[in-house]
Amino acid sequence: MGKKAVLLLSGGLDSATVLAIAKSQGYDVYALSFKYGQRHAVELQAADRVAAKLDATEHKIAEIDLRLFGGSALTADIAIPKNRSNHDIGHGVPITYVPARNTIFLSFALAWAEVLGAYDIFIGVNAVDYSGYPDCRPEFIESFEKTANLATSYAIESGQKIQIHTPLINLSKSEIIKLGLQLGVDYSMTISCYDPSPQGQACGTCDSCILRAKGFAEHAIIES
Amino acid sequence: MGKKAVLLLSGGLDSATVLAIAKSQGYDVYALSFKYGQRHAVELQAADRVAAKLDATEHKIAEIDLRLFGGSALTADIAIPKNRSNHDIGHGVPITYVPARNTIFLSFALAWAEVLGAYDIFIGVNAVDYSGYPDCRPEFIESFEKTANLATSYAIESGQKIQIHTPLINLSKSEIIKLGLQLGVDYSMTISCYDPSPQGQACGTCDSCILRAKGFAEHAIIES
Repeated sequence: MGKKAVLLLSGGLDSATVLAIAKSQGYDVYALSFKYGQRHAVELQAADRVAAKLDATEHKIAEIDLRLFGGSALTADIAIPKNRSNHDIGHGVPITYVPARNTIFLSFALAWAEVLGAYDIFIGVNAVDYSGYPDCRPEFIESFEKTANLATSYAIESGQKIQIHTPLINLSKSEIIKLGLQLGVDYSMTISCYDPSPQGQACGTCDSCILRAKGFAEHAIIES
Repeated sequence: MGKKAVLLLSGGLDSATVLAIAKSQGYDVYALSFKYGQRHAVELQAADRVAAKLDATEHKIAEIDLRLFGGSALTADIAIPKNRSNHDIGHGVPITYVPARNTIFLSFALAWAEVLGAYDIFIGVNAVDYSGYPDCRPEFIESFEKTANLATSYAIESGQKIQIHTPLINLSKSEIIKLGLQLGVDYSMTISCYDPSPQGQACGTCDSCILRAKGFAEHAIIES
């Protein structure tokens, strides 16, 4: 048995890669996904496939209804932007931003980590090819890590530090794909689209689809 | 219309007092309670009464199932300790501790604050007559406040700081009661018990009942 780690798993490309990384480092991975009123429940089916295929020890789905507050195209009845340029994607906070999402997700991961006695939490945030979310930046993650160590009795009593691992934070999308392929990740299991069909077909035109396609294209150019 | 504030409201004595304090400071108060798989749903009825009586602008109840992770007598099937001495209550982390609870609750408050454009969050934590929870300490609150300001786009874009207000943090239970009575709080609306009857009757012997009784007794002695 390895050391236990909690991983935030979305069913997308990034968190699948992080699961493969954590496994390659010898962790027993406890994967946590959220049903948070998002439009795309197909994401959760992808998360299930990824957890099984990449050998997570356990996969839990927490239900939280972020629609209660509204305020995002991912949870409320607002249109997902399509066909934006690379320049637009990298600038400003998009309407797909979910308020305080990573703070909420990491809080739940922390609760499970405490119950498991796990000191390692993995999250697939990325500050390079990211979509302009403030809670994907290293300064946010560092601050949350400090908060986590003050919040929980098991960290205080043991003197052992909780660590938030962000192995993708400085990688481009094509570097993430390269690393995942080296670790044997089958990306056909994953879905990145903000607005897939009910059958799980990606739209190809939302920010997330564009970033994913760009990543695969760049990876192919670098590799060829 | 005053400034908007989000308040964490439990239906207990402390958060009712904080609602009265926030109102006395001119805030429009948006009260947030949680249905988190706790044994005592009567707490939510008390929160409803308090929100209505003390004139909250809105009261929302977020459903999150912390039983998913287990690990606490307040959410799992573990007996609530009874008749503990004052010495025992003040020492060590009790079994009623819910992992990462205030981190989760504050994260949700932050999400709602962002949607509302509110920069003030009130929480009734208390570090004096408290029950040994690490996430009731000032160092935890300060750290969460820093994290909140890094997590959210509205704080970053406006340059205005999010503040976590803890007006009870240095008060004894009897001082809290005194302040609340001055502000007109009717404490018969509130319930503090960890293990009430389905009819909402307090048990009188759990840590929370003991601290409440001690607070009222001391207040009576000081006032008489």
